[in-house]
Amino acid sequence: MQNKFISDKIAIIGIGLIGASIALAIKHKKLPFTVAVYDRDEAVRAEARALSIGDSVADELAKAVVGAGLVIMAVPVGAMASVMQLAASHLSPGCVVTDTGSTKRSVIRDTIGLVPEGCHFIPGHPLAGTEFSGPGAGFPSLFEGRYWLILPNGADAEKVSALEDLLAGLGAMTEQMSADYHDRVLAITSHLPHLIAYTIVGTAVDLEQDLKNDVIRFSATGFRDFTRIAASDPTMWRDVFLNNDEAVLEMLQRFSEDLSYLQRAIRWKEGDKLFDMFTRTRDIRRSIIDAGQD
Amino acid sequence: MQNKFISDKIAIIGIGLIGASIALAIKHKKLPFTVAVYDRDEAVRAEARALSIGDSVADELAKAVVGAGLVIMAVPVGAMASVMQLAASHLSPGCVVTDTGSTKRSVIRDTIGLVPEGCHFIPGHPLAGTEFSGPGAGFPSLFEGRYWLILPNGADAEKVSALEDLLAGLGAMTEQMSADYHDRVLAITSHLPHLIAYTIVGTAVDLEQDLKNDVIRFSATGFRDFTRIAASDPTMWRDVFLNNDEAVLEMLQRFSEDLSYLQRAIRWKEGDKLFDMFTRTRDIRRSIIDAGQD
Repeated sequence: MQNKFISDKIAIIGIGLIGASIALAIKHKKLPFTVAVYDRDEAVRAEARALSIGDSVADELAKAVVGAGLVIMAVPVGAMASVMQLAASHLSPGCVVTDTGSTKRSVIRDTIGLVPEGCHFIPGHPLAGTEFSGPGAGFPSLFEGRYWLILPNGADAEKVSALEDLLAGLGAMTEQMSADYHDRVLAITSHLPHLIAYTIVGTAVDLEQDLKNDVIRFSATGFRDFTRIAASDPTMWRDVFLNNDEAVLEMLQRFSEDLSYLQRAIRWKEGDKLFDMFTRTRDIRRSIIDAGQD
Repeated sequence: MQNKFISDKIAIIGIGLIGASIALAIKHKKLPFTVAVYDRDEAVRAEARALSIGDSVADELAKAVVGAGLVIMAVPVGAMASVMQLAASHLSPGCVVTDTGSTKRSVIRDTIGLVPEGCHFIPGHPLAGTEFSGPGAGFPSLFEGRYWLILPNGADAEKVSALEDLLAGLGAMTEQMSADYHDRVLAITSHLPHLIAYTIVGTAVDLEQDLKNDVIRFSATGFRDFTRIAASDPTMWRDVFLNNDEAVLEMLQRFSEDLSYLQRAIRWKEGDKLFDMFTRTRDIRRSIIDAGQD
């Protein structure tokens, strides 16, 4: 691939699972960039140095972003505005800024006014991750064959194409959409499933000790899949729910109605209603397998 | 292993994922038994013959169970009583009858009065399965290293030990418990997770078409795990919810309260409550990994 940014320096702010994986993928795939990484947590910076994440680990945000053609904000969505605020006066004219946050309306709302004239903010969201967090959780193939959503939000087509080239270079498939639509899709595909997984695991945490121990032992029957999801980073997910509250609450309302319907069917022993619902849900699984998403 | 039943014939009634896997495991592990299988569905019997499941595929239930030292009822829990009723007059004195149903209080309640004098009913439940169903879904290693719960329910220790030997021969780890306790543990580890997965996938099914298509495309962010669970056999799961309604409704009540708590925290932007809950749920994941259940 060719570098179409104003310089071959990429700055990554936040060296968690996502930030570290981007740095590792750029190196692993020998893309023509120099990567400077920064994290506000000194222990994380030390870990990044030990793991050789990025070509340099900066001790100040300003040093990471100065001269960069692309700045990637890979921090929890609640921290995007303060990163942009700290970075703004050090950004080079013509540079592109993107982020990897899981909510997009809030990130645009919080940061758009802070982007300096002449810089190009193109929000993004890689649909990739694991239940692990921190620089040690990163790996270079995280984005391979995964979607990376882009919200051009009126940015120059040339800059959008530069960003898309890089993301394709990381192995991702890019897709453009609006922030509103993004937040609705993610509310049902990701945010609500996480909220529900957190809830059911929380319900189990509050069980009496004997029962809880056996829930752990006999978890291989459905519950275990939920605990994996519910082991995700608490800060990131707190921020997701605070920042996509509208779409999540709407989907949660629908979910609760549907759950009450099944609850009532169980209470009144209406087997046909249960059977109908359990048959309809099978088709969606088939569609996912057909779409190659399994 | 040694056969401790009154004969070396094992009858398996119901040739679904579980029944087929038991037959395949007995053959694969060269256990000293002859296996007769039966299913009330002619097409399933034909498939079982084509796949060489069991040493013989009987066309009548009576022919499968006659002379058997062990009869395994591997049918949906709502069908256990009718299987026992059909089998009763053909069972040999001294034989053991077990089942593989996911609810235990209801199976005991429905069948205990139908077991002939001199036969030994020892309910059981293998904690193993996949989202696939039917004879073609069976495979011999399904029970390898998995728990198989046994409810002696007052049966002769010698008969219980004969059954446990066989199950260990299939690769399973047996555990004894009471029906009440079984139904409570399974309500939270398996039944409630399935109900919730069915619900959220059902909620997605009802979305407008464009959004639904993108939910399928971008499912790799949590939702996909739920669709796998929600693809499980509708008949089996209808019967589970109708037959473990008490324990499921109790756990569902707790779950709903916990979900309302998080919903309220989102609405009122109480980030600390969300963060606390998301931190507590992480520990259970750690316990499951420590318990070797992942």
